[in-house]
Amino acid sequence: MLKVKRIDHIAILVEDLDEALSFWSDTLGVELTFVEDLPEEHAKVAFLPVGESEVELIKPTTEDSGLAKYLAKHGPSLHHICLEVEDIEGMLEGLKEQSVQLINKTPLTGSRGERYAFIHPKGAHGVLVELYELPE
Amino acid sequence: MLKVKRIDHIAILVEDLDEALSFWSDTLGVELTFVEDLPEEHAKVAFLPVGESEVELIKPTTEDSGLAKYLAKHGPSLHHICLEVEDIEGMLEGLKEQSVQLINKTPLTGSRGERYAFIHPKGAHGVLVELYELPE
Repeated sequence: MLKVKRIDHIAILVEDLDEALSFWSDTLGVELTFVEDLPEEHAKVAFLPVGESEVELIKPTTEDSGLAKYLAKHGPSLHHICLEVEDIEGMLEGLKEQSVQLINKTPLTGSRGERYAFIHPKGAHGVLVELYELPE
Repeated sequence: MLKVKRIDHIAILVEDLDEALSFWSDTLGVELTFVEDLPEEHAKVAFLPVGESEVELIKPTTEDSGLAKYLAKHGPSLHHICLEVEDIEGMLEGLKEQSVQLINKTPLTGSRGERYAFIHPKGAHGVLVELYELPE
């Protein structure tokens, strides 16, 4: 049985990381854990845990990445939702069987050992959905 | 001290509630708890718990509500993030002191006794943020 365990994070695209951090951290009182430069994703990201989930603030660091283009088109906004799943391979197989449009047909591996894949917004009723399977 | 406890829900605006429910429930395996008609908000909503949070699918039921106009302009998409806070009055006072633009300056009360207020996207770096204080 496929299983979604929790919301791992909600990603928000921002124009000014310091200002957005000031709002989330100083104004709302959500603690910042760390800021990470992700040159391969042309972005700088900040993580702020909220309960069992995190708010991820993403600031594009180049002008021509997909993220930068999304930001230029939509302005700062909610960007994607990431769900932790028990079995990402099984989940992707199930999605493929149902012809759900995927951005990643097989999982990639992130810097913290998490395996992840994105479902295309066309396959998820307009929402960019990321799936995560965390290392044991 | 202001405290954000958890993400209560992530709201997604949908064009077709049955199709979106089929994706979230049948395809991803997230269980539906209930569907509610909210005529005063011109919407029909479905709640699907994911860990300690919920995914809320919102389908506008009239043509000229704010939600319907947002859907017409942006298409189906992530709409807002709702944070459970310990003290909504204190949080709103703090936001007012910092001149953060609010949609609701004092809390409203929802159908389940929750007190809620929205921060305007202009006050929250492009994101519509709802605050919730749940009854004890």
